[in-house]
Amino acid sequence: MELRAFGRLIPAETARRRLLLAARPVSRTETVPLETAFGRVSAVTVRSSRDVPSFRRATWDGYALRAADTRRASAADPVRLRVVGEVFAEGRFGRRLRAGETVAIATGAAVPAGADSVVIFEEVVREPTSIRIVRPVPRGDRISPVGDDFHRGERLVRSGERLAPGPLGTLAACGIPAVRVYSRPIVAIVPNGNELTSPGGRLRPGGIFESNNTTLAAVVTAAGGIPRTYPPSPDDPTRIEATLRIALRGADLVLATGGSSVGERDHLPRILPRMGRLLFHGVAVRPGKPTLAAACGGKLVVGLPGHPTSCLSNMYWLILPVLRRLAHASGPGWTDVRATLGGDVVELSPGLSTVVPLAFRKGRAYSTFRGSSVVTSLTEATAFTVLSPGRGVVRAGALLVAHVLDPPLGECADGLPAGTVKVP
Amino acid sequence: MELRAFGRLIPAETARRRLLLAARPVSRTETVPLETAFGRVSAVTVRSSRDVPSFRRATWDGYALRAADTRRASAADPVRLRVVGEVFAEGRFGRRLRAGETVAIATGAAVPAGADSVVIFEEVVREPTSIRIVRPVPRGDRISPVGDDFHRGERLVRSGERLAPGPLGTLAACGIPAVRVYSRPIVAIVPNGNELTSPGGRLRPGGIFESNNTTLAAVVTAAGGIPRTYPPSPDDPTRIEATLRIALRGADLVLATGGSSVGERDHLPRILPRMGRLLFHGVAVRPGKPTLAAACGGKLVVGLPGHPTSCLSNMYWLILPVLRRLAHASGPGWTDVRATLGGDVVELSPGLSTVVPLAFRKGRAYSTFRGSSVVTSLTEATAFTVLSPGRGVVRAGALLVAHVLDPPLGECADGLPAGTVKVP
Repeated sequence: MELRAFGRLIPAETARRRLLLAARPVSRTETVPLETAFGRVSAVTVRSSRDVPSFRRATWDGYALRAADTRRASAADPVRLRVVGEVFAEGRFGRRLRAGETVAIATGAAVPAGADSVVIFEEVVREPTSIRIVRPVPRGDRISPVGDDFHRGERLVRSGERLAPGPLGTLAACGIPAVRVYSRPIVAIVPNGNELTSPGGRLRPGGIFESNNTTLAAVVTAAGGIPRTYPPSPDDPTRIEATLRIALRGADLVLATGGSSVGERDHLPRILPRMGRLLFHGVAVRPGKPTLAAACGGKLVVGLPGHPTSCLSNMYWLILPVLRRLAHASGPGWTDVRATLGGDVVELSPGLSTVVPLAFRKGRAYSTFRGSSVVTSLTEATAFTVLSPGRGVVRAGALLVAHVLDPPLGECADGLPAGTVKVP
Repeated sequence: MELRAFGRLIPAETARRRLLLAARPVSRTETVPLETAFGRVSAVTVRSSRDVPSFRRATWDGYALRAADTRRASAADPVRLRVVGEVFAEGRFGRRLRAGETVAIATGAAVPAGADSVVIFEEVVREPTSIRIVRPVPRGDRISPVGDDFHRGERLVRSGERLAPGPLGTLAACGIPAVRVYSRPIVAIVPNGNELTSPGGRLRPGGIFESNNTTLAAVVTAAGGIPRTYPPSPDDPTRIEATLRIALRGADLVLATGGSSVGERDHLPRILPRMGRLLFHGVAVRPGKPTLAAACGGKLVVGLPGHPTSCLSNMYWLILPVLRRLAHASGPGWTDVRATLGGDVVELSPGLSTVVPLAFRKGRAYSTFRGSSVVTSLTEATAFTVLSPGRGVVRAGALLVAHVLDPPLGECADGLPAGTVKVP
């Protein structure tokens, strides 16, 4: 068995910064119908091409009239107006309203020319062909003026905005049926290792089921990306390189899992420098040290450790912010809070940062770590913290900064964990 | 124009409770591959059918050996072990390890029978066909025992659990390729009104573009449902009823918009009682009073006002919790916080609750309401509050309970708004 060693490990923060600097937000765009555009990021600033409403709109069921006609109305001396027609929401009163006239009008209908107010049914006395008004109607009452909602030229959506129901509604109200959005980043996930069998397949002796495709696809989806998973590649450098090159062609980011360390069958450290500029190999962090990355013509290829926990741990602290940058999302994908540690946490290796997965119980944060190869180490984690090298043992009761994963990954859907305080 | 009136309005809270009582979580299930199962709700409890790992696994690159052989090892008197082979991750050492023997072993490989410890490369002195050990190796060192990850019969996922990356990873590690989840609720959205034109169409005089399909589809999507939007129906009761019956057949919930009030062309109040048991017509709330609902054979048909703001406002405070119940999600879809009002808020109608859309600026909550027919009233809102009847004017500086919409609808992705305190 060939023995090699890592060169100089780079600090975790440096690794993340190098990746973020090299990551470019996806520039491809696509046009999607409004009804499927929720949550997408607009690639354009959209301004209204018209005044909405385009006509003076009754905001209530009642009678459209000329306010001047009612100026002297009182209970003792009511004003009588002749009902000369009715207008429903889509209809139109054909001519100008004259003095002494009124038309019944439905909510949403166009107020006839000449009329300048609407009085509601409940405030008039109805007679067969007329109504009686017992007090003056204010001018403009119950009428939504032209452009009340928005004027021609007004900005409805800005480029880079994540589309929420309200702004989408303004596009619809303006008659715009579709919107140009940034395409979701496509992320290829390529597992390597002779020992791997896809779930559902038949396990060989000494083999294990491939699970990084599943966890990484989930995180990619959560971050707004489209995962493209590949079946496990055997430990053959020629085949791995061919697969990675194919994957890179059709993706914005390639995540290779396994084969990222310094062992005889770890082929990524030799392949990646042929594909692009190596950004680093070996990160001063545990779990997750055997990680490397290369920038390949504006795209990134990252090699992650095959250990399920190391792989998912790196996916959170290292890759999630990169995914969000590709997807035009703001923030790293977590929210920082001050939390109190509920149990002791032990530095894993001297000289390396330790990424500690955390779960919250009764207002305190507990480590869920059970070993790098143990899948369940991260099952219950909704947050993590990074201990800097040399911390040794951090005792229960210590205050730390926890990175609480944002929804849909973490528990923030219900606000931040009890007992924590957001870092301003 | 025919004039009718609402009967007794029911309180907002009662309307919501009646809907929630009548709403049944979707019982249909479907099997989805793990890689697309993120965020879905498991319809089954899954237990492991095997021990994982199924063999004793080396957790480090090194040499597998018998700890007893090294008991007397020291720098002065090293123990020499003969290297009799090597095992890679997928491989197997064919026979039992004998005293005085060792095999090179790669991380993840099966530890040979007879061996009970692994010593890492860095801690031995390598010779051409043997190694020298300078201190005793603890028994069990660097070995992950059978079932260390999880044992046969251990619960991996429970029924009703929202599937996160970690639990999905345990299913994969156990060899399970797919999981049975609850189907997403299908929500039909049926707009009514002669005045409506779908965005992209040609606007008639006095007409407006239909925008409720867009906003409601967004909220349905955010709540984990599948929206099915229909083109606007003209104000013809026969056609509306036919459309609603077709929509109901293929959906778990039908949301009809427009035609829900008491005007001459408001047909829903006559149609819904023919389709099922009327739960209410008229809610003591503004905006959104003209709302009705019927329970139709275990499903719900709700008629919402056509005014875009009334419609979306009701969609949040009234329908979102119903959608979440259909989708097996917990919580109403918002988080309650105590917030300080930044400007005066006025009760809209005496005797009715007022739903006030809110946006947060500099730690204070401001109303974004600009009128029921004004689409932009809700564009910037990320929260809302419900004023009980008789509040009159609520002044700036008042403390209130704001319902902050959970992600992906609201702003909680970055924690709760600054200046607010979560209601325990």
